[in-house]
Amino acid sequence: MEKRSVYLDNMASTPVDPRVVDAMLPHLKNTYGNPLNIHDWGQASLAAIDEAREKLAALIGAKPEEIIFTSCGTESNNFALRGIARANEKKGKHIISSKIEHFSVLYQLQALEKEGFKVTYLPVDNNGLVDPSSVEAAITTETTLVTITHASNEIGTIEPIKAIGEKVKGKGIVFHIDAVQTAGTIPLSVADLGVDALSLAANQFYGPTGIAALYVKKGTRILPQMIGGTQEEGRRAGTQNIPGIVGMGAAAELAVKEMPERIKRLAPLRDRILNGLKGKISDFFITGHPTERLPGHASGCVKFIEGESMSMFLNMEGIAVSTGSACVSKALKASHVLIAIGVGEENVHGSLVFSLGKDAVPEDAEYVIEKLPPIVERLRSMSPLGR
Amino acid sequence: MEKRSVYLDNMASTPVDPRVVDAMLPHLKNTYGNPLNIHDWGQASLAAIDEAREKLAALIGAKPEEIIFTSCGTESNNFALRGIARANEKKGKHIISSKIEHFSVLYQLQALEKEGFKVTYLPVDNNGLVDPSSVEAAITTETTLVTITHASNEIGTIEPIKAIGEKVKGKGIVFHIDAVQTAGTIPLSVADLGVDALSLAANQFYGPTGIAALYVKKGTRILPQMIGGTQEEGRRAGTQNIPGIVGMGAAAELAVKEMPERIKRLAPLRDRILNGLKGKISDFFITGHPTERLPGHASGCVKFIEGESMSMFLNMEGIAVSTGSACVSKALKASHVLIAIGVGEENVHGSLVFSLGKDAVPEDAEYVIEKLPPIVERLRSMSPLGR
Repeated sequence: MEKRSVYLDNMASTPVDPRVVDAMLPHLKNTYGNPLNIHDWGQASLAAIDEAREKLAALIGAKPEEIIFTSCGTESNNFALRGIARANEKKGKHIISSKIEHFSVLYQLQALEKEGFKVTYLPVDNNGLVDPSSVEAAITTETTLVTITHASNEIGTIEPIKAIGEKVKGKGIVFHIDAVQTAGTIPLSVADLGVDALSLAANQFYGPTGIAALYVKKGTRILPQMIGGTQEEGRRAGTQNIPGIVGMGAAAELAVKEMPERIKRLAPLRDRILNGLKGKISDFFITGHPTERLPGHASGCVKFIEGESMSMFLNMEGIAVSTGSACVSKALKASHVLIAIGVGEENVHGSLVFSLGKDAVPEDAEYVIEKLPPIVERLRSMSPLGR
Repeated sequence: MEKRSVYLDNMASTPVDPRVVDAMLPHLKNTYGNPLNIHDWGQASLAAIDEAREKLAALIGAKPEEIIFTSCGTESNNFALRGIARANEKKGKHIISSKIEHFSVLYQLQALEKEGFKVTYLPVDNNGLVDPSSVEAAITTETTLVTITHASNEIGTIEPIKAIGEKVKGKGIVFHIDAVQTAGTIPLSVADLGVDALSLAANQFYGPTGIAALYVKKGTRILPQMIGGTQEEGRRAGTQNIPGIVGMGAAAELAVKEMPERIKRLAPLRDRILNGLKGKISDFFITGHPTERLPGHASGCVKFIEGESMSMFLNMEGIAVSTGSACVSKALKASHVLIAIGVGEENVHGSLVFSLGKDAVPEDAEYVIEKLPPIVERLRSMSPLGR
């Protein structure tokens, strides 16, 4: 095949949809008044923010006033965990989570542990699934918060959130999910899932970087992490990112309309990549659930090879992939997520994540299937571990 | 005069310069790769961020690696205070600040007080100036942090930061300034001022909302507030706001070039507003320093009248002003800043801030001077306190 440019790192950040840019542009140019001020400039900003808040709320079946805009998925997760744990600490200091959380959840939980909280990290099965009954079994009278990822960016497995929600419900426990990889990508409704708090980020569904949100169900206690202003009803102080908020709203609106079509297009391409690579590369195995996974997410490990090396060679062919979590790929640490699904230490460094964007075409999948096997062959011939 | 549209709320947020929008647009459309990833998409992001970081560093005489991008001035202030106080708490738990700080400083200090820190809030004189020798006198062996605003958005007085820096220097104390209203507006150099940390925000100098920064001098201990990724050298986790960062860099570059001309244009318009209103409205007094104040900042109080009412009538004439701090103007609380400079409780609600933008023209000043006096007359005739 002719050389192509194939961006398969959409779990880290998606391109911004040109229609989102169009929606943002007039506001980037003309909407800057302080939305807390009564003057026309401020009221124009407030109207733009309110409209976007409604669109975003509609994406997840929430009420607009339950949406708090933040600056990134990490802020949403950090804020949710600390804000909820601290607001409810008089009731108890036990938190339930899983072994496959994003670092923005994991590190905040570790910080809370240092401050006296107890955290149960539930195991997952080899497909990456949390067992809802294990959540139920872990609940104590001290439990105030359950936080589970909706889908890990590393393995793409979609967790049984609704079933977990049913186990948590009615016990006075706040149920938070990290939906950064799912909101805007697969259909979800906070009421249907039974969640009280949910993190999401615009740059995961064709909105811009720099803007994200936290859904907090009405009546849920949460302490603000940024203080010093009455923005976002005092729950997140600081001048709001007006063009970003408008962009997130526009991206949400497009996601609502186009999601079924996007999923229909992506799922077969994902399966084609998984099966194509499995068929052509020996010692390749799929990571994550074979079917219950994000529509655009294909991941696996190639034994005896470094993911970073494959990634570099793929880049020379015009293909962008990730070797694991977007936030620490420089660190080259063994992924705790892959360890949790039972990938051995010896194979954990050979992981690759191919995440397709909504405009992917079959040729993109074929191109990867053509280009990766010879790279693997070449790296194996160079490696002392190769065979 | 014919009806004009005069935006005088630039202390809350400036319009985005069209050249900044032009600089952002290609990145908004095309730069989305994960800058921590080695692929071309990521490296393009990294290059864009690095270039902007250099431009921003140049604005304040810092090294690029001393710049940490954040999402707003409030985040920068919150982060600086908590991050520095907590990182240095083994040395001591005493902080020195002033009575005229922004809420993002004040509320964070109050939160730290609840956690066992001691804070000295220094008084200011009637012009709003902190006395450098009062800073020196307040220093104890427990002091680890001095945080002073460079200029309050409510009164515009420029504090003697360099003189304060000299008092703090060499004592192992971190000196932070809230330069949200000054960076990009008046010339400043961190080395010249002798500061170790400095907060600034793009939307105060014709960059977009949603992006700000914290300067932290090399070697200064600070704990991250957002955790879960290696972005910003691990000091601020989370996906970076790429178009925002590029916009902030572009705005910084323009500020460096155009600052002298902007100041030259604005200072006489500011003085014209102050003197014009003083001459035409009885019982009007200027708040803040008569000369040592931000070039575009005119503020004062009209006795016996509510600022909110004047603001509403001014808006009907096409003029946007603020009645005090941008972040809490809805709250209608008596401003702690005005109380600190000696404005009595009876006059504190009559405050107005006229903050001129770089493109202001003399007609804007004349328009305000023409429109406000009859509004005051009208409100006085309606008020039981009027005379």
